[in-house]
Amino acid sequence: MKGTVLYGPGDVRCVDVREPKILKPTDAIIRLAASCVCGSDLWPYRGLNQIKEPMAMGHEYCGIVEEVGSEVTTVKPGQFVVGSFCLSDNSCPHCQFGFQSSCVQREFMSGAQAPMARVALADGTLVALAGKPSPDLIPHLLAVSDVLGTGWYAADAARVLPGSTAAVVGDGAVGLMGVLAAKQMGAGRIIAMSRHKKRQALALEFGATDIVSERGDAGVARIKELTSGIGADAVLECVGTDESMHQALKSARPGAMVGFVGVPHGVQLDGEFMFYTQVGMLGGPAPVRRFLPHLIDLVLQRKISPGKVFDLELPLSDIAEGYKAMDERRAIKAMLRV
Amino acid sequence: MKGTVLYGPGDVRCVDVREPKILKPTDAIIRLAASCVCGSDLWPYRGLNQIKEPMAMGHEYCGIVEEVGSEVTTVKPGQFVVGSFCLSDNSCPHCQFGFQSSCVQREFMSGAQAPMARVALADGTLVALAGKPSPDLIPHLLAVSDVLGTGWYAADAARVLPGSTAAVVGDGAVGLMGVLAAKQMGAGRIIAMSRHKKRQALALEFGATDIVSERGDAGVARIKELTSGIGADAVLECVGTDESMHQALKSARPGAMVGFVGVPHGVQLDGEFMFYTQVGMLGGPAPVRRFLPHLIDLVLQRKISPGKVFDLELPLSDIAEGYKAMDERRAIKAMLRV
Repeated sequence: MKGTVLYGPGDVRCVDVREPKILKPTDAIIRLAASCVCGSDLWPYRGLNQIKEPMAMGHEYCGIVEEVGSEVTTVKPGQFVVGSFCLSDNSCPHCQFGFQSSCVQREFMSGAQAPMARVALADGTLVALAGKPSPDLIPHLLAVSDVLGTGWYAADAARVLPGSTAAVVGDGAVGLMGVLAAKQMGAGRIIAMSRHKKRQALALEFGATDIVSERGDAGVARIKELTSGIGADAVLECVGTDESMHQALKSARPGAMVGFVGVPHGVQLDGEFMFYTQVGMLGGPAPVRRFLPHLIDLVLQRKISPGKVFDLELPLSDIAEGYKAMDERRAIKAMLRV
Repeated sequence: MKGTVLYGPGDVRCVDVREPKILKPTDAIIRLAASCVCGSDLWPYRGLNQIKEPMAMGHEYCGIVEEVGSEVTTVKPGQFVVGSFCLSDNSCPHCQFGFQSSCVQREFMSGAQAPMARVALADGTLVALAGKPSPDLIPHLLAVSDVLGTGWYAADAARVLPGSTAAVVGDGAVGLMGVLAAKQMGAGRIIAMSRHKKRQALALEFGATDIVSERGDAGVARIKELTSGIGADAVLECVGTDESMHQALKSARPGAMVGFVGVPHGVQLDGEFMFYTQVGMLGGPAPVRRFLPHLIDLVLQRKISPGKVFDLELPLSDIAEGYKAMDERRAIKAMLRV
């Protein structure tokens, strides 16, 4: 079959790869309904993460179970499933505390920019739907697997409360999902930081009440101005640079939390700054598994439309263009027909 | 009157100073029932904070109101009051959110290692008792002003929950108060990190269930061992060095919070470490004012005895010995008869 492999910075290709097989009795093989490119795929694509050997790309997925290992009991062939990009047993202490992304058996999904993929720890990772979803729901269910689940975690870690003011740093797909999540959690005011017309429009559609186009200290000043000098009650950091993290911390009021989900690259925090700012932080790889049942339910009830972040649809053979369009910020997020 | 002035590293003296006066209509003058030396006083004493000019020392206090400014309405002369080391108006947005230590009008108390002191923002800062407390309660009420309030905030910021496992890094007076706070909040297991017999004994008296005498990575390993490899549910960081902060972060399970109240000196945090550890943090100067009514009540009901941290009592004239004994860790905390 065809699959996506990253060979080096800027060099991603759709090539012949082996079909996935059951390797462990806890595995499942799924036939993907669709796949997509993640913002985090751009870190190695841009050469910011080292690429030691060709990497099988793709970790967002939903689709039909094709085959299961002998120990899999909760899903079976023919079922439509959605899973998390973090593979987890959903039973270890960390999973029980709701932090499946730190599962003692954690693995990261790979190879899902392809028509079929192997999912390890299938019982703990996959959630099966009662029936087959309507085809128009596929993009929304696909979004649940990572981009929505991650934006949701940012809002959860930032402790967005009903009536509160949330600020979202980053207008990538995750940031936009953070806006949607904050809206669902009842934030009374949602400030989206974006200088990009199309993304601003989508942020407003997802529930943003204010747009701040300034960045850095000017962005912080604007948020202070919008909140009568107080700062936001909850801040979602969805980028991962040192500048964006400090922008997030400075935009929050004392006692607020920053939920950070952008994978940090070059972020350094000074203890004294953290102390006197009195802003808290919690982040990490999103425990999407915790949120899956609720988010799938919201999609099936058509209460949310996270799939709107996909503004480019391509056949898998055009994967290189998907990465390029996202890298150049021509596309928010590319969906792949597999 | 006599008061305490720090002139340079290691040079603290009881000298003649001016009696405090009402400077603003929102001030109060109090006659202290007792005073004490704080662990944070040791930072400048040790030369780790710059001393630009002679500093009037002391920020923990309780006692009788002597005089109030014309705008003070909630306390009056003759009342016994306890206040926070952070002076706050208790009405600005930050105060209303419970973070009085980041009050827009915040000042830090000073000059309280003396028989009398000026308290700015008296209405927002002081809490009056209904009557005069029994003399044996004075040390406990004095402790509320900072050391207990700060240990309490560490437990609050670390989100200690009933039945949870809390770990306390630091066996200074604040760490010991953190143990007491975790116990009051219902922690099922409280691991105190200490290699000092007397402090270990006090930690056990305050509610610690386990003592870990190892430090650094060995201390982390021991906590992991005690928690079946999981890590603590809540960690209180009560030191402020880079080593202690990293020890705290590594001792926590993913999803846990570190409440940090040791004033950071040289603490640097790597964003990627924070991300993959998936441990949250919240700290800062403790908003003691939020906790004052509850803590005073616990003392008056004799449910807690935080004043047991005072293991040395001296007349104010011996202030230099109080600092020295704490610096050399011969005393946990020195109380001063003023």
